[in-house]
Amino acid sequence: MKGVIASRAPDVRVIDVTHGIPPQDVLAGALVLRHAVPFFPAGTIHVAVVDPGVGSARCALCVETDTATLVGPDNGLLSLAAPEPSVRRIVELTEERFFLTPRSTTFHGRDVFAPVAAALATGTDPDALGPRRPTMERLALPEPEQRGSALHGQVIYADRFGNLVTNLPGHAFPRQPVSISIGQVRLRGPSSSYAAVARDVPVAVVNSWDLLEIAVRDGSARERLGVGVGEPVIVETQ
Amino acid sequence: MKGVIASRAPDVRVIDVTHGIPPQDVLAGALVLRHAVPFFPAGTIHVAVVDPGVGSARCALCVETDTATLVGPDNGLLSLAAPEPSVRRIVELTEERFFLTPRSTTFHGRDVFAPVAAALATGTDPDALGPRRPTMERLALPEPEQRGSALHGQVIYADRFGNLVTNLPGHAFPRQPVSISIGQVRLRGPSSSYAAVARDVPVAVVNSWDLLEIAVRDGSARERLGVGVGEPVIVETQ
Amino acid sequence: MKGVIASRAPDVRVIDVTHGIPPQDVLAGALVLRHAVPFFPAGTIHVAVVDPGVGSARCALCVETDTATLVGPDNGLLSLAAPEPSVRRIVELTEERFFLTPRSTTFHGRDVFAPVAAALATGTDPDALGPRRPTMERLALPEPEQRGSALHGQVIYADRFGNLVTNLPGHAFPRQPVSISIGQVRLRGPSSSYAAVARDVPVAVVNSWDLLEIAVRDGSARERLGVGVGEPVIVETQ
Repeated sequence: MKGVIASRAPDVRVIDVTHGIPPQDVLAGALVLRHAVPFFPAGTIHVAVVDPGVGSARCALCVETDTATLVGPDNGLLSLAAPEPSVRRIVELTEERFFLTPRSTTFHGRDVFAPVAAALATGTDPDALGPRRPTMERLALPEPEQRGSALHGQVIYADRFGNLVTNLPGHAFPRQPVSISIGQVRLRGPSSSYAAVARDVPVAVVNSWDLLEIAVRDGSARERLGVGVGEPVIVETQ
Repeated sequence: MKGVIASRAPDVRVIDVTHGIPPQDVLAGALVLRHAVPFFPAGTIHVAVVDPGVGSARCALCVETDTATLVGPDNGLLSLAAPEPSVRRIVELTEERFFLTPRSTTFHGRDVFAPVAAALATGTDPDALGPRRPTMERLALPEPEQRGSALHGQVIYADRFGNLVTNLPGHAFPRQPVSISIGQVRLRGPSSSYAAVARDVPVAVVNSWDLLEIAVRDGSARERLGVGVGEPVIVETQ
Repeated sequence: MKGVIASRAPDVRVIDVTHGIPPQDVLAGALVLRHAVPFFPAGTIHVAVVDPGVGSARCALCVETDTATLVGPDNGLLSLAAPEPSVRRIVELTEERFFLTPRSTTFHGRDVFAPVAAALATGTDPDALGPRRPTMERLALPEPEQRGSALHGQVIYADRFGNLVTNLPGHAFPRQPVSISIGQVRLRGPSSSYAAVARDVPVAVVNSWDLLEIAVRDGSARERLGVGVGEPVIVETQ
């Protein structure tokens, strides 16, 4: 992909965000993209490829938002970084003259998304890439639910440290600590930092995505607690 | 290596292709290099280091082809990206004035290949680096064999997704599906994409290297089939 | 972090050194930084983040040495790359106007160190970032000990190949081979290269950090010997 961009848009700077998304994990890619995009300059072209449906009938998209241009497969990967109100246009990538020839069936990152990104970076208008589309595939992130005095959330992402990120936003937590249950563990939190507890002890913090995260100091919460994405997290708010 | 290049060739752009080659796996490195080079601009200097013989009597090379300049150890790593007819000159790196001093015995990437690449990038002619050599170490990639109505190939590479890449080229396959056997599995293929089968089901596709690849949808063929590099793959072509 | 730097210092070039430091392994990060910095151009700004104490009372630092500017947490990570005599000034990062707002409690790499590095790269004087500090947290690397005719060292780092790096410097070894003991293994060395022994055989070399390293040819010494950081290494020098 970098070779294609270097060939077609030699002056364009390419920045690696991550090569650490687990294979086929579209949700993990979508979350990382959502939380990376806001920190890049407005107008940055973000190419994302987690693409188990490559070569099938799934579409390829260019999505322009108020702050960024996203290029990738139409499988939900781009959707969290492009919330509905921010979307200016969605274009389906159909104009094959922008693609590599021949086009493989297993690596559209190289053959479709990279050359399209290079075209955009050198001034091609998104509308030249194909027809507009009214909608895109969207990931349905689970919403926290209030049930009586308890807030029910779940783990939506585990990072490479084994930290367990939940769908519970920071603003859901009052100033005083609450009771948080996950797997066999019940703890008080959120704490002010990972280091608020002793080594190997579970700790809950509001993380850099402004979401409640369950960690283990100097360890892996995923391994220590034996739970992963989908695990319920219950917060007693009273 | 990047620090050495930044010091000696400050205006040169460095692009990471991969840091994911398994330790000491010269063949994997050679295959990845072969399939990356064609997508970079002509004249790009490619530095490759998979170098278990570092510090021994193995030579260091600069290989100029019709489209690229390759720098690395003479252990076959560069050979697949430099097929015989494309080679313009092979130069042994002996001129120590281009190397770092002192030179370690364990990291010629930093001490030999990076500074030589920086010299090339700033205009040094390859012939200044040492004497010409008529040949280089070449990897012997196994060739597919036709035996009666069956085409016998094998797995030559497993990528980080666990996809098993064979030595069977795309043009070996007729339009109608054939029978493909690998390990305990027999399947019809090639399919048009990974997604042509159900989740967790093995599938054969012609991949982005134009080679037959055995995958498992949303999974790892290496783990699911329990086989790896060297495993026979038999195609019944009738 | 790269997005923040691209936003605040658009013309600055960012070079990835490694993303392979094991989680929370401050010593490994400090060693890699020590051995990377000397190969970069003088004046390079090095941002390092291995930061288990993020969000706690641990300080954030900018350390200027004779050859480099280092930015990161005050947990010893920067200390090996900034030996006492080379330190020109140590500045505590307290001026919040250089930070991102709001500042998370779990990712100061993004919210503190990256924006501070961008400020430095665009000409901000380190003294503008906060007050000077007389000292910094320093890692206590174990020193080799001579006991009679034996030199006692230990493993201080294991790289991704499973090579075991010791605290025994190259100059401690005479020209003739000596006896080296580690775990259940006793070998003669240092050898002139990894390839001086047969496949799967342990070998000792003086490595690219000028330290004695125990490796296994074409394999992992960590796995083969079953030992890691802290393991004693005894050299019989007579």
